[in-house]
Order: sequence, then C-alpha cells, then structure tokens
Amino acid sequence: MTPDTTRFEEAERDPDISKEQARPLITELRSELLKAQYARLENPQRSLLIVVAGIDGAGKGATVNLIHEWMDSRHIRTLAFGPPTDEETRFPLFWRYWKHLPAKGRTGIVFGSWYAPLMQLLSEKPPKQADIERLAASIRDFEALISRDGVQVLKLWYHLSRDAQKRRIAKLESDPDTAWMVQPQDHLVARSFKRIREAAAHMLALTDTPQAPWTVIPSADDRMRNVATGQAILSALREPMPSAARLGTPARPALPRGGRRPLSRVDYSASLSENEYDDQLAHWRGRLARQVRSKAFARQQLVLLFEGNDAAGKGSTIRRITHALDARQFCAVPISAPTDEERARPYLWRFWRALPAPGNITIFDRSWYGRVLVERVERFAKPAEWQRAYEEINQFEQQLAENNILLIKFWLAITKDVQLERFRARERSPFKSFKITEEDWRNRAKWSAYTRAANDMIDLTSTRHAPWHVVSANDKRHARITVLETVVKALDERLA
Amino acid sequence: MTPDTTRFEEAERDPDISKEQARPLITELRSELLKAQYARLENPQRSLLIVVAGIDGAGKGATVNLIHEWMDSRHIRTLAFGPPTDEETRFPLFWRYWKHLPAKGRTGIVFGSWYAPLMQLLSEKPPKQADIERLAASIRDFEALISRDGVQVLKLWYHLSRDAQKRRIAKLESDPDTAWMVQPQDHLVARSFKRIREAAAHMLALTDTPQAPWTVIPSADDRMRNVATGQAILSALREPMPSAARLGTPARPALPRGGRRPLSRVDYSASLSENEYDDQLAHWRGRLARQVRSKAFARQQLVLLFEGNDAAGKGSTIRRITHALDARQFCAVPISAPTDEERARPYLWRFWRALPAPGNITIFDRSWYGRVLVERVERFAKPAEWQRAYEEINQFEQQLAENNILLIKFWLAITKDVQLERFRARERSPFKSFKITEEDWRNRAKWSAYTRAANDMIDLTSTRHAPWHVVSANDKRHARITVLETVVKALDERLA
Repeated sequence: MTPDTTRFEEAERDPDISKEQARPLITELRSELLKAQYARLENPQRSLLIVVAGIDGAGKGATVNLIHEWMDSRHIRTLAFGPPTDEETRFPLFWRYWKHLPAKGRTGIVFGSWYAPLMQLLSEKPPKQADIERLAASIRDFEALISRDGVQVLKLWYHLSRDAQKRRIAKLESDPDTAWMVQPQDHLVARSFKRIREAAAHMLALTDTPQAPWTVIPSADDRMRNVATGQAILSALREPMPSAARLGTPARPALPRGGRRPLSRVDYSASLSENEYDDQLAHWRGRLARQVRSKAFARQQLVLLFEGNDAAGKGSTIRRITHALDARQFCAVPISAPTDEERARPYLWRFWRALPAPGNITIFDRSWYGRVLVERVERFAKPAEWQRAYEEINQFEQQLAENNILLIKFWLAITKDVQLERFRARERSPFKSFKITEEDWRNRAKWSAYTRAANDMIDLTSTRHAPWHVVSANDKRHARITVLETVVKALDERLA
Repeated sequence: MTPDTTRFEEAERDPDISKEQARPLITELRSELLKAQYARLENPQRSLLIVVAGIDGAGKGATVNLIHEWMDSRHIRTLAFGPPTDEETRFPLFWRYWKHLPAKGRTGIVFGSWYAPLMQLLSEKPPKQADIERLAASIRDFEALISRDGVQVLKLWYHLSRDAQKRRIAKLESDPDTAWMVQPQDHLVARSFKRIREAAAHMLALTDTPQAPWTVIPSADDRMRNVATGQAILSALREPMPSAARLGTPARPALPRGGRRPLSRVDYSASLSENEYDDQLAHWRGRLARQVRSKAFARQQLVLLFEGNDAAGKGSTIRRITHALDARQFCAVPISAPTDEERARPYLWRFWRALPAPGNITIFDRSWYGRVLVERVERFAKPAEWQRAYEEINQFEQQLAENNILLIKFWLAITKDVQLERFRARERSPFKSFKITEEDWRNRAKWSAYTRAANDMIDLTSTRHAPWHVVSANDKRHARITVLETVVKALDERLA
C-alpha cells in the first residue's frame, strides 16, 4: 500500500521567508502568543499538549527553544522521553505520558511521544499490519479521552525535502561549533528518507482525528519553521472550547441499558460462624502471605479495587488483606474528593499515578468508578461525561490487562436494612461515630439511584479481563473470606 | 564503652495487662485518639511522623495495623522502606524520606527509617566510631530541621526481654497459620539479642533529642504493646505547638553579621563585544554539549541554581545553557509561590523532590534561597525561620556534595540604574511587558533591603563545596559567557 503523501508536498517545496517578511510577523506573533497564553491561564479550562515529531535534522529542538523565548516559559514544560526505561516497560505505553500531563491553563511540549513506537512499527519491513492497527487505535483512544477531559492536543510534524535535509546536516557538521548537534541517526535518516517519508504519511493518515489533527510544519528554512510553529500554537490557543460533538463520542458509546440488575441476584443470606471464620481467615491469609513473598510475585503487579454500599465494610475487609502483606509492598489509596492538582487534569490521572511497580500492590478504597457512581448520582459529572466513562474505564483496564497487571474488582453489597442497622450502631459507638455523617444519611436517601448506578456499572464494565466480584457483605465474615479466597485463587492462577 | 541500658529495664520486665484492665483503657483511647486526630485535621499546623523501630519479632507490624483500625485510617499513611534501591543509593540518605513527608494535619508511619543504617553501623564489630558520630549528627540535624518546620517526630522503640522474644517467635512458628510471620532474621536476632540490645541503647542515647525523643514500648504482651502505642500517639497528638526554644536552634546558628558586602566587590564594567560573544558562545556551548553527552556524564547529577536581581537576565542565560542540552536530560524548574501541597510541608520539600537522577540536570530559576531573600524581605518567614535557614541550607547542600551531586550557584548582579533601564524597556516591548508588574516596581523600591539580604546570603552560604558565583550581568553577553564557562570548567574538573 502506498500512503498518500500529498500533505507533505507543500513542505517539500521547502518554502522560505525573508528576514524582512518575517520581522513584522514575528513581532505580531509574539505579542499574540503571550496574550493567548495569559487568557488560558486566567481561565484554565484546558491544558495544551504539543506533540513534536518529524524528520530528524528538521530543527525541532531549536524551534521549541524559541517557543520558550516567545512565550512565558514559566508556564511551559518540555517533556522529553527517550526509549522506555526498564521500569517504564513494565507499565502500559501511555503510563509515563499520563503521569506528566500538564495542568489546565498550562502547556506541555512532548518529545519522544507515543508516535515513536508507531513510527518504529511503520518503518519495519514487512509491516506487521495488525500491530500497527492496534497501536494506532489505542493512540486515537488515548488522544480522544484526554481531549474530552480537558487536554487539547496539537500535533506538529516537521518536514522538509530530502535535499534540504542533506544540506542542513552537512552545514551543521561542517561547523565545529555545531557539529555536536548532528546525531548518528541523522545520517541514517538521510539514507532512508523515502522509507521514513512513507511511514510518516501512513502514520498521519492513521492518527489524524478531528480532536487531535496533525499540522505539517515546513522546516527547510529556520524562519519559516519558527513562524509556522508559532502560528499553529497561536491558533490552537485561540480555539474556543470545542463542542461535545467535535470531540467525538467513544467508538462504542456505552449507555446504561437499564435492563439488567446484577445486584438483584446477590444471595444476602450467606454467612459464616465465628469458628469457621477464624479457621478460614488463618488459612487464606496464610496462603496470601506466602504468595506475595514468593519469587514469582516479585515480577507481578497487583491492583485490588473496592467499591460498595456505605457501611458495607470495605475498610475492615481491606485490613484483613493488608495484615498478610509486607508493609513495604503495598499502598492503600483511599479515594475522596480530588485535590487541586487532580482536578486540573483528566479524572483518570490520579489512578495512573498510583499503579504499582512489579512486586507491589495498590489497594483502591473507592476508585475510578466514582465517575459512574457518586459523580453520576450527585451530578458532579455531566451526562456525557459519565456515559462515556464506561468505555474509557474499559479501555484503561484493558491496558492494565495487556501489561500483565492483575486487577481484581470487588463490589461489597449490603441490603438497605443492614445499612440502617450499621449506621445506627456507628452513631452509638464512641469510636465509630466519626464514620457516619450527614452525608451518609443523604446518600442513603438516594439508595435507589445509587443502586441503579451500581447495576449499570457492573453490567457495563464486567469484562473478560476484569470481571466484577459482587460479594454479599450482610455478613462481614462471609465477605472477608470470600474476598481473600478470590484474591488467593486469582493469584494462584496468575503465578502458576 | 558499655551503653546505658537502663531505659530498657522497664520493658524487659515484660509487663502485661489483663483483658479486663485493657478494655476500658482501649475504649477511652480510641475515642480520644479520634478526637485528637480530628483536632489536628481541622487546624493543620503540623503533621505527625511516627518512626517505628525495635527488636524484630516484637509485633510492630501488628500494632501499626491496629492503629489504622483505631484511628481514621484515611488520614494515615504507612511508609515502609526496604534497603535502598539502585536509584535511591544515588541520592542522599534522607531523599526518599523527604519525598514522602506527610502534609500538615496528617500522620505518617515510617518502617525502615533512617535508623536502619545507624543500627547497622552500631552492630558492627569493631564499631566505626567516626561514621557513627557523623550519621547520628546528620539524623539529629534532619529531625531538628523538619521539627522546626511543621513535622512532629515521634519515635517508638519496641522492646521486650530475650526470653519473651524467644517465646513469641516459637509461638508464631508452631502455628501453621502464623508461621509465615516469622522471618529468617528473627532467629538471627534471637541469637544476637545482647548485641542488638546494646546497639539499640547506644542509638537511643545518640539520637534522643528534646524535639524528637524516643519512647520505649513494652512489647512482650500484645495488649500492653497496643495500649502503650496508643498512649504515646495520643500524647503526641495532644502536645501543643512547641515554643521555638523547645525546638532548639541549629547547632551553629548563622546570624547575618552585616559586615561583609560581597556584592560591593563586583566589577560591573565587564563586557563583551558582539563578535567576541558569538565566538565564545559557540565555543563554550559546544564544549558543554559534548560534556553532557559523554559517557562520564551518564553517572553525574548536576544542579544549576540561578538567583539575582529582577531583570538581571536569568531566563535568557538559562536558555543559553539549555540550548546545548538534550531536552530529555534536563528539567528547568521556575520557583514561584508554593502550591498547596508544598505549603503543607517543610520549605525544602519541593527542592528535594526535584533533584536530578544520574545523567540529568535540574536548573532552578530561583530556589531555596527564596527563604533568605524574598521571604526575609517581605516578612513571609519569621526572623527565626530565615535566620536558621542559612545553616539548614548549608546542611542540605552538604548532603548533595557528599553524594557527588554537583551544585553550581549563580548570582546575576546588576546595578540599580541598569535595572531601571531594563524595566522601562520591558514596559515598552509588546512581548516583554508581561515580565514587568507592579510587584517588580515594589521590589525595586526595596532595593537596599534586597541587597542586604543578598550580601548576607552570599556571605553565609558560600561554602567550600558550594561557593556562590557572583556574575556581573550589566552586560548580558558577559554574564552568559561567564556562566557557560563556569559550568564547563566545573564539569571538566568533576568528570576528569
């Protein structure tokens, strides 16, 4: 297949611009860029993420340095990524990019983005078509997700003709003061210009989307390249907040169907005697303790996630697990209202940051499912936001699965009358009364809305790689043992 | 030298407490702990950092788990550290502890603290006295510093008699359900009880300070251990904010002496012609570019720090350096008003977090010296705070030096008339006017106060391992070249 390279034609004509033409343009650009940047900072609805890619030797680095001079560099962060480190290879491709997303109002410039592995794949002969399609799709999903959630993505491809590229490299090399700027790969690129050009055309075609389009920057002439970059950034900064339609809906929008009610199938009568419980607890906890200290576990990443009705006993269940763990290998993350830093970024950001390293365990006490539970019921999220979250969450969890990160999700279910008993008991207890607030009573008044949200959630996000374990918790002993047993068996299977 | 072990005597009597005695105590403790915890959260002046150490097999882990049940565990974070990872060994000992300091109002529990290496040293035969003294002193300095700046330190040593320890281990091992709790080192400890006991006594004596005292927790009996732990935490939480006197002053208080005025010795006439500048810039930038791409640099950590008068040209000087660097290897950190997360922690926290990994460079545009410059002049810091900061900063920088982290500090100096010219030029410039605000004019009105502060700072923090480079910046070309040359020469010496 010969990719369409027409969008490179203009850049390969190597347009230039004279000093006299450039001067007024640049003066105007600089003051407009600053105005636009400050307007964003004053009303921080979105961040701007500039992806810089292109033919080697096109002068990308010099231009980005110039952008720092033209704008107020205190609010711009350059994020440069090399080949993944050992640690980074243990996480999904997008992990390191997620971790460094700029806060709303601010600008990030990415070198060595997620397009590096795609270019790599596209340059191989013969091309692995399935891998290419899969990676391109996951890139589109990633960009769509962050675009919808407050990150504007501007993608720049720096391009020039083969002859111009050769001339640029030769010129840099001939001067001892700039020879160091020429890297060995620049020569490789010169030799394989045609192949890279085709791969790039293919890549642009695969990943040009309405919410994250590519802009080709003519790069043979320094002034032209600088002005074109400044103009692209300016028009991105000036762009008003896009409508929901322009941002697109997820590929497979998942709207609650309302029909299925998985929680109605729970057997709330399950229980354990105190003696049985003590035996089982010692047994499963002992097995878990040995598993997490095994050699095989040193390479495993484990995420445990707990959701459930208020007063279902999430905290005490989690403690039965952590008692078996080495304190150095787990991190329990209670999820409450987001901090300022978290609010300034897409809602999944705080969870990406907390993923465990190999041999480690992250335990979420409440989780990203808040988006389709409390945020839906309390209307903190707009309908479009929580409705598309099912698909976004499924994609997130699929990335974990593809990277061998084991995720086990629990919904601890109690009945309305048991919740009432526990609320009352808590109020009477001198050291549990802090656990019961006005808010709990308000939430309880919305019992049916929360139940509907939980039913939809379990229905729409029970996937093969991350099924929900719905556990009756009317009897706490039963719930704790069921959770421990589920974790141990899942680990047995994984570590076998 | 036989250390004084009398403070272990009470714990080695292995006191216990009956179920009947414990019940009312625990009921009372739990509700008081919660009250105290909430009082702290409502008025977050300090965080509480609980250091957990003691004889192995004393049941430290079980007690900490219990603390999570007794208090509101959402506001407690257990921080468990193992032997330093490869990455961690490249940083000062306290780096990883700094990074995880809890925010004001919250509680952190540290396992595997800075006392692990001290116990290690103290257990060696023959003891390396100088190393022991040095480490103990740096621990006292660290605890004093964070105590003075909003972190309350509570240190618990779990202790029991040799016989009781043997019994505890045998009991755990005899039960297949708890055998996993016994680690190989527990047996080692049993064999070397006497040696460890002496090392511990020595350690407590060396590091028992008014602001961070040790509490010995009798640990033979579970209930006794739990109650004693709860009581220790409760009395720490109830302790009022200590007076400055109780927190102690730095070992060597550094008060500005007012006599020396290093800035008066600057030759402001130094300048470079445009031609000279171009030649020199290409030369030094080329050398820097080769240095940072060399094999030797891959193991080096480099910190560049820029302070100076407003409009002295810090930003443009920094850019002359970054132009020579690979964008993947440096991070430029502009320091402005701290974020909420930063304000909730000691002022040095944000800088510890930003230290570079090997092969990397952090460039601070303004820095920790804000404490003795803007915070002093604008009275954001109390006199006691900025006065002790000189010594705190010297200790911080010494830790960098001891870990082979190269720090180069620049003060860019301009005269008052040149500042005025530049302010006016900025106001006239369409794309620099954002750089000049009312605040700049206000600061300028305090020129002599800032000059006094800068003189004191340079005088009191120019150390052998981290001298100040005061650079005349009335001529920007001269300043840029001087800075580049200084960096290159320092690197040459370091990488040789």
